[in-house]
Amino acid sequence: MRVEILCTGDEILTGKTVNTNYSHMARRLVEVGLEPYWGTTVGDDRESLLLAFRQAGARADAVIVNGGLGPTVDDLSQEVAAEAAGVGLVLSEYWMTRMTESYARRGRVMPPNNKKQAMLPADCEFIDNPIGTACGFAVTIGKARFYFTPGVPREMRRMLDEQVIPRLLKQSGITGVTKLKRFHSFGVGESRADEMLSGIEAFKEGGGVKLGFQAHYPQLETKLAAHGNDEADLAARLAPVEAEIRKRLGNFIIAEDDQTIEGVILGKLREGGHTLAVAETFTGGHLAARIAPLVGAETIFKRGIIVRDPAATVSAETLRQESGASIALSVAVQLDEGADRPDFGATITVGIADAKGSVSRQARLIGGRDWVRVGAVELGLDCLRRHLLGLPVDERIDFERR
Amino acid sequence: MRVEILCTGDEILTGKTVNTNYSHMARRLVEVGLEPYWGTTVGDDRESLLLAFRQAGARADAVIVNGGLGPTVDDLSQEVAAEAAGVGLVLSEYWMTRMTESYARRGRVMPPNNKKQAMLPADCEFIDNPIGTACGFAVTIGKARFYFTPGVPREMRRMLDEQVIPRLLKQSGITGVTKLKRFHSFGVGESRADEMLSGIEAFKEGGGVKLGFQAHYPQLETKLAAHGNDEADLAARLAPVEAEIRKRLGNFIIAEDDQTIEGVILGKLREGGHTLAVAETFTGGHLAARIAPLVGAETIFKRGIIVRDPAATVSAETLRQESGASIALSVAVQLDEGADRPDFGATITVGIADAKGSVSRQARLIGGRDWVRVGAVELGLDCLRRHLLGLPVDERIDFERR
Repeated sequence: MRVEILCTGDEILTGKTVNTNYSHMARRLVEVGLEPYWGTTVGDDRESLLLAFRQAGARADAVIVNGGLGPTVDDLSQEVAAEAAGVGLVLSEYWMTRMTESYARRGRVMPPNNKKQAMLPADCEFIDNPIGTACGFAVTIGKARFYFTPGVPREMRRMLDEQVIPRLLKQSGITGVTKLKRFHSFGVGESRADEMLSGIEAFKEGGGVKLGFQAHYPQLETKLAAHGNDEADLAARLAPVEAEIRKRLGNFIIAEDDQTIEGVILGKLREGGHTLAVAETFTGGHLAARIAPLVGAETIFKRGIIVRDPAATVSAETLRQESGASIALSVAVQLDEGADRPDFGATITVGIADAKGSVSRQARLIGGRDWVRVGAVELGLDCLRRHLLGLPVDERIDFERR
Repeated sequence: MRVEILCTGDEILTGKTVNTNYSHMARRLVEVGLEPYWGTTVGDDRESLLLAFRQAGARADAVIVNGGLGPTVDDLSQEVAAEAAGVGLVLSEYWMTRMTESYARRGRVMPPNNKKQAMLPADCEFIDNPIGTACGFAVTIGKARFYFTPGVPREMRRMLDEQVIPRLLKQSGITGVTKLKRFHSFGVGESRADEMLSGIEAFKEGGGVKLGFQAHYPQLETKLAAHGNDEADLAARLAPVEAEIRKRLGNFIIAEDDQTIEGVILGKLREGGHTLAVAETFTGGHLAARIAPLVGAETIFKRGIIVRDPAATVSAETLRQESGASIALSVAVQLDEGADRPDFGATITVGIADAKGSVSRQARLIGGRDWVRVGAVELGLDCLRRHLLGLPVDERIDFERR
């Protein structure tokens, strides 16, 4: 089935806003087994919108339209959709009541121009927006079914998952249920992860699980898009694959699904009744900034120290004594000489001290100043995670040169 | 003139990569006085590309195509461009030689599949790529002139500015020269900045300078897209507008063009022979991270201290004595009670101590934990900038509640 994503709005068209709504929608489609076929961007312009709707209606089987459902005069999606579908606009009494009640609950009176948001193409299919005043709807234009969603990311994301994707799956004939399982890893590049996971049966044609990667250096996200006849079938298909991935990626997995490495670290520190101190150099606060501002870190994060002069660097042992924290982490970075360049690198020395003693690890990273800084922060966090979980802190990672 | 931007590639189509090439190209067009008319995204698929080229050629006057010029089999732009233009592919001996020489200079032999990158549509206009192996070219398809650019952002950006935009301006009949002047401010929202700059003659129709804003909270970028008959005319038009903007936005201007607030601060510290120490709480390292990692900060940034327990907070005076730095900055954040929410806020206390004494400033910011953290960092930096420049540190900003 050919699915097109049609984004509207001058802010997107002129590049003032980067179109992250598009990439989110496209990723979600892929994750549930649908294939984005085409993307279109047009401004808040009646003529362009009409042409875009007609061309998409001739090209695709389904079109998700994003934006243009607001209360102002430059929001044209309902009007142009009605024109393209060859129908008039009709007031949805239901949506007027819902909007009026929503304003009333917050002790406010609905402004008159919000009525525009309840004017929908005649005979359209209503699509609920549980968290905003821009409801969605579906109409047929040409040979395609069009699904209209608001431009506000939070509202679009929820409506996409709860309302639009189920309709697209039904339209495409895909039955059953889907789930996206995610593993976050550090220290393995995309091509090696692909090798490490090769030969798993479920990833083969018809196995019901599609493997995908998303690199956010220095982390890698491994995504399993699973499909089953029902929840039980889905769970039965996914469980052995998840187990196999945990086995193969092993210690490199830093978190799963919505977890983060910093959340895992904070959880382990809390569990062990620990407090933490951090010393850093070239990373200049970026390391502490991953943990200190977190909810719950108030009582755990005791102290962070930043120095740029290598002579003033504090060891983990000294920091632990001076700060009174039960665990101390130090990340020292010895930068190469000279100007920034693609092979500019540094030697990273990570030290961890606790009541039982101390451990340390060295690694050389290259790739320019920014790359090295980002890598050093993650290496420091990962050593701390490994130490807290009783895993080896000096396992070789793909990004280091030895 | 209708300019379309046509982005190709599966990574963009499926949302794996966010399409920042599109937003960059669209912004640059607006900045030189051209108007993006349409955006299209298709994958590495022969049939889709051919349809996209034909539809764009029927719709637009000029089309910038991005991507698909690489050496691998899924790079199809030259082939499909030739098909759509009704011509064959011809080897560019010139580009073959350039590529071969470029490899030779780095002591390498050009892989055979790079030859594909020198196969261009017959009779096309060659567009130089001074920093890569994917050259550009221009052909006519339908009623539009198509300009092909590589997907590598660094190469696309340079070719867009040096090669494509001059051709587009010529095609559109816009003569003369253009310049983009940028002012970065902190403390003024977009709508108030718009008010503060109202009535400036040059911004009126035919005045030759177009005003635009780009908000990157908490900073605001004010952009002047200027157009003149020649460099002298351009300078004469721009100079009084620049002076007027500096007067009206005044102390709120933190930097101009490629400058950053942290760069300005580091420059003033160096100029005054100063060293710096920073103490922070809830910002957790984000403040130090703006200055400490900079080139040149090694000898200036003496020490950063992070504590989350309000009782352990260090004052600027104490920090200055303990660190031995000549200037100390402290940013303490007293967060509201309870869970994160849209009106969650904090009271920010900024202190600065130097040899002459100390100054302080308080402000209440709201907008949720992340918003408050980002605002507190910028407020701290801006107070330090103001102090170093001899400006009042307690000027009211738009984001604070009193």
